[in-house]
Amino acid sequence: MVMKVYEAAFSTAAMRVFAALYEKDLKFELVPVDIRAGEHKKEHFLAINPFGQVPAFEDGDVKLFESRAITQYIAHVYADKGTPLVYEGKPMATVGLWIEVEAHHFEPFASKLLWELVYKPKFGMATDAAVVEENEPKLAKVLDVYEARLSQSRYLGCDYFTLADLHHLPTMTNLMGTPLKKLLAARPKVSAWAVDIMARPAWGKVLAMRNQQ
Amino acid sequence: MVMKVYEAAFSTAAMRVFAALYEKDLKFELVPVDIRAGEHKKEHFLAINPFGQVPAFEDGDVKLFESRAITQYIAHVYADKGTPLVYEGKPMATVGLWIEVEAHHFEPFASKLLWELVYKPKFGMATDAAVVEENEPKLAKVLDVYEARLSQSRYLGCDYFTLADLHHLPTMTNLMGTPLKKLLAARPKVSAWAVDIMARPAWGKVLAMRNQQ
Repeated sequence: MVMKVYEAAFSTAAMRVFAALYEKDLKFELVPVDIRAGEHKKEHFLAINPFGQVPAFEDGDVKLFESRAITQYIAHVYADKGTPLVYEGKPMATVGLWIEVEAHHFEPFASKLLWELVYKPKFGMATDAAVVEENEPKLAKVLDVYEARLSQSRYLGCDYFTLADLHHLPTMTNLMGTPLKKLLAARPKVSAWAVDIMARPAWGKVLAMRNQQ
Repeated sequence: MVMKVYEAAFSTAAMRVFAALYEKDLKFELVPVDIRAGEHKKEHFLAINPFGQVPAFEDGDVKLFESRAITQYIAHVYADKGTPLVYEGKPMATVGLWIEVEAHHFEPFASKLLWELVYKPKFGMATDAAVVEENEPKLAKVLDVYEARLSQSRYLGCDYFTLADLHHLPTMTNLMGTPLKKLLAARPKVSAWAVDIMARPAWGKVLAMRNQQ
């Protein structure tokens, strides 16, 4: 039985899941969820994700939601396929740390900024300059820590590409389409890392999939 | 060499780490960080956590921060000690999911509410009733999902106590000291689960440790 990803509008969370699936070279079926028709609040979908949010995921009898729980599942259960994205035991310690850093340091500021700079204008709402002004230096400070880390290690978690890098891809790619790309450009190690991970064939497949929508 | 936990004021994040250490029956040394003297922003501490925040953790040459990365490390690397807190492969899928639910659904609302109801009054600041009014129903909705989950499963991740439950302990215990305990009391499965996990001997040791400070 092929894995299923339930998705609506190519959210950053869904793109994180697709990236892991392509890195692992796994077949999957995209199941569109009709948000306008309220399908995500209907019983059959709530049975997969009781919070009624996409993406959600099914692999046989395993039903999951939360993008980072789905990528962890894919990485651990399909450890022997495609790119190794996680490790076991002590080598996982630092990878696990940078997975948490993405979720609790990078993403909160980056997503607030993207909401103001990308999504609000798209939905005809005005960007709140004060929110941008508050969060831009916070994101810059996080990237300073990344610059130091990437001076010691080729990738964030270790010298190999792992989930810790992969989780950044959707938001990082979106940031590159805003004036905030200057924050990346100003940091040579971060900049080289961002170019490197965005050039991965698996990520190219995710972007190609998005362009076909 | 004994493990070290760098900590300042018994934060919820630090208590999460202590709970994992006591569940695993591991010896550790508490290293106080003098926040008032700015010790967390000095070079020797920034070498462990470049974000300059407590708690931070050392186990020989492994240096970590972010409480949930530390607990994952403890649970996986000391898998054979004390309480099993994680599993490998497919059985970990649902545990991993509920670890993410705690971090991205429960904690954001619970910590906003605790800031208003516990910490602001403690620091002589006024509670913002609008923030409470906005976040209380959001936390209630999360607890509705927990009530349904705990009707199918003894604990959140599976039928055994795991990190998915443990990560709730500090915030849950703090909520019990506020009028929001009514949200728990109104949900029998959530209420029984909260009583059960808070009664664990390892958690009792964390609270005893706090009371000795």
